Amino acid sequence: MAGKYEKTEQIYEGKAKKLYTIREYKNLLLQEFKDDATAFNAQKKGTILNKGIINCELTNYIFTYLNKKGVKTHLVKQISPTEMVIKRLKIIPIEVVTRNIAAGSLLKKTNLKEGQELSKPIVEFYYKDDSLGDPLINDSHALAMKLASEKEIETLKKAARKINKILKPFFLKRGLKLVDFKLEFGKDKNGKIILGDEITPDTCRLWDAETNEKLDKDRFRFELGNVNEAYAEVRKRITGN
Amino acid sequence: MAGKYEKTEQIYEGKAKKLYTIREYKNLLLQEFKDDATAFNAQKKGTILNKGIINCELTNYIFTYLNKKGVKTHLVKQISPTEMVIKRLKIIPIEVVTRNIAAGSLLKKTNLKEGQELSKPIVEFYYKDDSLGDPLINDSHALAMKLASEKEIETLKKAARKINKILKPFFLKRGLKLVDFKLEFGKDKNGKIILGDEITPDTCRLWDAETNEKLDKDRFRFELGNVNEAYAEVRKRITGN
Repeated sequence: MAGKYEKTEQIYEGKAKKLYTIREYKNLLLQEFKDDATAFNAQKKGTILNKGIINCELTNYIFTYLNKKGVKTHLVKQISPTEMVIKRLKIIPIEVVTRNIAAGSLLKKTNLKEGQELSKPIVEFYYKDDSLGDPLINDSHALAMKLASEKEIETLKKAARKINKILKPFFLKRGLKLVDFKLEFGKDKNGKIILGDEITPDTCRLWDAETNEKLDKDRFRFELGNVNEAYAEVRKRITGN
Repeated sequence: MAGKYEKTEQIYEGKAKKLYTIREYKNLLLQEFKDDATAFNAQKKGTILNKGIINCELTNYIFTYLNKKGVKTHLVKQISPTEMVIKRLKIIPIEVVTRNIAAGSLLKKTNLKEGQELSKPIVEFYYKDDSLGDPLINDSHALAMKLASEKEIETLKKAARKINKILKPFFLKRGLKLVDFKLEFGKDKNGKIILGDEITPDTCRLWDAETNEKLDKDRFRFELGNVNEAYAEVRKRITGN
């Protein structure tokens, strides 16, 4: 397999992933998942055991599921325990966060209490800019910065709500509450907006459906212990591995 | 005049204004403007000479002008240099900020530079909550907190854009650029959303149209000097006093 998709130049290294070009496939990239973990705009750093393998496997599993449900994603195929071939996208610099239950930064900008179920999902845009600390923005900020057109903004929101409607029951069947999650989108070579990045315990808040135990990156962020175990548990519930 | 509108109980004291009930008029209140000034969520405090008189006069002038242009406001009439009778509103706890030129907090959450003209006005919602520091929120936060309905959110945005279209040329004719401004709205006894609060150099960024000199509360916030003079200059350009 490595013969078919030969990785050439590393073009990006982020907090949790690396991206490489692939020889002979200009419109594809290789996405490699790392064990590294960061939090609070990279002020806290560490590693989580097998996170690269788990998150690659989970993203492959969930993106394949989404694709069957009619959501276009950048996934082409997984080619090793930590590597997947993806479509090359022009990433829209907006993190789209969807929330079903109040948690995290939401508690600092609303009067909602942790664990409170939202009557309707909240969708938020964060401007992907490390120097600004990925601030919350609204539609008119996105327009003023020309991050997306009015129509594209609507596409992002609709896609986030659609994916939420698919994933909420998907996780619940597996004993997990989808509290909130972050998505990134990009444009493919035809200018079509499709889902990129990853869907993993790094990018979702997942709580045990019975006990509300946190089974996601918050265990790392807030040093709650059993971080590796939480990632392994999510893997087991989703993929059976 | 004081005979007609006899103030009784003080029901509110804010950073820049006091509100009193009025004997025999249940649906009216008396709004009194103070010289006190605060900034940065009341971490900085001071007074500005004649600010109470200037801001009462300016709000009376501008709200009267808006009313002529078809914008309903809470203003009934000015009854003393620092006091006006207003309709009693149930205030919607959202500060509606409209921006024509990049300045202030916008520079911390976008890549826009101070002084940059926006191709389209930005409209922002801030949740009025001192303990949270009046955070930026979006439509879905407002909905989740039940601060306003979907229809009311649209009403607020439309009203802000309409008032901006009226006030931008109003100020420009008087040698002032309307950089940005904050509005507060409330519901009257019939449930109709109308404009409340004030429109003054406390709530607007106003720059000299020729020199871009700041003629607003930023002179106080950032200790730029000539604070009193700036307020007096705005008064002179608007009301001629």
